[in-house]
Amino acid sequence: MAGIARDDCVALDLRNPLGHLRDLFSLPDGTIYLDGNSLGALPVATLARITDTVVNEWGIGLIRSWNSANWMELTSTVGDKIARLVGAEPGEVIITDSTSVNIFKVLSFAAEIGQRADSQRRSIVVERDTFPTDVYMADSVARIHGMKVVNAPTAELGEVITQPSTAVVLLTHVDYRSGAMHDMAAITRVAHEAGALVVWDLSHSAGAVPIDLHGVDADFAIGCGYKFLNGGPGAPSFVWVHPRLVNEPVSQPLCGWLGHASPFAFSDEYSPASGVRRFLCGTPPVLSLAALDCGVDTVLAAESHGGVGALHQNALALSSLFAELVEQRVASHGIRCVTDTTTPQRGSHLSFVAPTGAYAIVQALIHRGVVGDYREPDFMRFGITPLYTRFVDIWDAVEQLTQVLDSGDWKLPQYSERKAIT
Amino acid sequence: MAGIARDDCVALDLRNPLGHLRDLFSLPDGTIYLDGNSLGALPVATLARITDTVVNEWGIGLIRSWNSANWMELTSTVGDKIARLVGAEPGEVIITDSTSVNIFKVLSFAAEIGQRADSQRRSIVVERDTFPTDVYMADSVARIHGMKVVNAPTAELGEVITQPSTAVVLLTHVDYRSGAMHDMAAITRVAHEAGALVVWDLSHSAGAVPIDLHGVDADFAIGCGYKFLNGGPGAPSFVWVHPRLVNEPVSQPLCGWLGHASPFAFSDEYSPASGVRRFLCGTPPVLSLAALDCGVDTVLAAESHGGVGALHQNALALSSLFAELVEQRVASHGIRCVTDTTTPQRGSHLSFVAPTGAYAIVQALIHRGVVGDYREPDFMRFGITPLYTRFVDIWDAVEQLTQVLDSGDWKLPQYSERKAIT
Repeated sequence: MAGIARDDCVALDLRNPLGHLRDLFSLPDGTIYLDGNSLGALPVATLARITDTVVNEWGIGLIRSWNSANWMELTSTVGDKIARLVGAEPGEVIITDSTSVNIFKVLSFAAEIGQRADSQRRSIVVERDTFPTDVYMADSVARIHGMKVVNAPTAELGEVITQPSTAVVLLTHVDYRSGAMHDMAAITRVAHEAGALVVWDLSHSAGAVPIDLHGVDADFAIGCGYKFLNGGPGAPSFVWVHPRLVNEPVSQPLCGWLGHASPFAFSDEYSPASGVRRFLCGTPPVLSLAALDCGVDTVLAAESHGGVGALHQNALALSSLFAELVEQRVASHGIRCVTDTTTPQRGSHLSFVAPTGAYAIVQALIHRGVVGDYREPDFMRFGITPLYTRFVDIWDAVEQLTQVLDSGDWKLPQYSERKAIT
Repeated sequence: MAGIARDDCVALDLRNPLGHLRDLFSLPDGTIYLDGNSLGALPVATLARITDTVVNEWGIGLIRSWNSANWMELTSTVGDKIARLVGAEPGEVIITDSTSVNIFKVLSFAAEIGQRADSQRRSIVVERDTFPTDVYMADSVARIHGMKVVNAPTAELGEVITQPSTAVVLLTHVDYRSGAMHDMAAITRVAHEAGALVVWDLSHSAGAVPIDLHGVDADFAIGCGYKFLNGGPGAPSFVWVHPRLVNEPVSQPLCGWLGHASPFAFSDEYSPASGVRRFLCGTPPVLSLAALDCGVDTVLAAESHGGVGALHQNALALSSLFAELVEQRVASHGIRCVTDTTTPQRGSHLSFVAPTGAYAIVQALIHRGVVGDYREPDFMRFGITPLYTRFVDIWDAVEQLTQVLDSGDWKLPQYSERKAIT
């Protein structure tokens, strides 16, 4: 790919059978958006849907819309759509709460099943350097159940998972910094053979990479609505539980009225709903659910063009191009790609480290309209969302990166000032 | 008030100094909305705000809006507005998660403080027949902490609270069915004298009745965003903790990354934020927060006209009129008011029981455009939101109720068919 020109990228875009999906999004002029892994872009359909929800359903229908506009069912109807993206069946996925809260719920549920099956199993395994909420919630669930958390380096996961003390393994499918992707099938098989359960955090993979929860015989999964599912800032999260486990006679601590078998009986005794609806808790956030519905539709629009598999192939090509161009053009500045682009076992984003100034370089790029993000301690992270990221965007982004580094622009003091949100 | 005529109500509305606040709402023609205690009506300002949030902040600002549009601060800025309605100080209230989830968080935190202070205190007191989530969450927290729940009838609360075994009392300020209002100052004083902590659930009172959390020396409070605060279906909830307790060295189990002292350090060790921000958990739902902001503004608009106190006085007059008219016009059908309208110690809704057919009568009223709701086992509940409910609305509602009962319309089979959401 030596000497690849901008025109070559334009040509690649013209040949891309998924290229028209970009029209499903409302993207600002003058911005190359490479942060859809943190907040997906705005679908064109969302504004009309939200307006209808506000003006007609809430404004005119008022309380009646819980029935007439099927508000209560949105947790399931949007869940059923996500099911199609992750290899689950209708009725198995529910939308509720935040990812953090759902990790707590599912991990509590899994820990209780694990402990019941064998009280000697007292460990929850997490991966070192995974997203912090996963570790915090594992610590919290372990404290409640008198268990301990084993925080294992990636290389030792296989060994730790097979320990007879392991009850539950909580793993992020795609790493939030490096983009490295676990082999769900292999890890789930190893864990099952060792008698452990696995909770998959799909935050950085749902909608971005092919997932087949039933195919890999997974136990539990949770995921995020506002990244590759384009549900909008703070969109609610989803929960999937395998049917063989979901009705186990164990409880999870967040037993709110909406997860009750008969919420409107207002009974004093908690009796969980059948199936995944027992993971509901409070009243669902209808505006956010409506926006998430539109976001998920953008990913489903790829179904007739190869689906998430085809999107992932495009993402791999786009991120390989990114890494190649960086290598060709700015390697002399010491920029190093930490995502292993030699393997397709990776997600839809990639990260680089810089010998110095990673934060400032990202800010200088944002100032030039190339929006990626920075992650501690020295990661420059760029999300590839093939629904709207073009090959020419990658070329232009690396061109800007080259200018920022060659000019030394990033050393200007305004780029080093830390913002509240990085 | 014998023989009060519709024109008398029209006159009362004309003299109402808060009457113009109705213009802040977008209300459908042909509907008398008496369910604002379940879902507040749509503020006129909300659509423009949500449109701006979607189109400009999300669509154009994208991830940058966490800084440039202060998305992350919405949890606090809207919280500061709610603080003004409940007698709290700026910085003491945070918006996060659902009411159900927040009850769990705050009750866990309170239980741990209570247990630390005196390990013999092993009871969580709740009121019998309170909203079920409160009981379920008390059960859950008790299970985690090896405590027990004492489910006390209202008449025995005083005695139970003062037992030396009581660690925490969880009470709903205004009862969700009868509208009966507890004396927060008196109960808090009794509890404190007995060495117990009190968690107040303000779901049916915030924005509807005067609340002075500091004035009554309260410990903890949580409340709902979509009832009298008009935040829209499933709007997030709020948490308040007294400054003397909020930084106690205890944990609550929902330790998500956003409640961390330095969320963007992505540290493996959880260290809670200072103050009430430690009750944050996952990424905040921005669309819902923006809508809640507009809803809270409608209640704050009453500040220059006597505030929530004046709204409550109007609600008392409106609900007294409702009860009087029912007594005069349909008492012969056995309709009985269960809200004690002889005392101002009540909230902003009222309920009636019918000897038979309460569910069907409510459905027949809804069919005629008078929207109240039904609560098990035989409650017909009507919310009075003085921001938009007029005296003439009450007169017209009772006129429709009279017609429904006198004609026997409610016995038509379609009104007995149970809907999913009642």
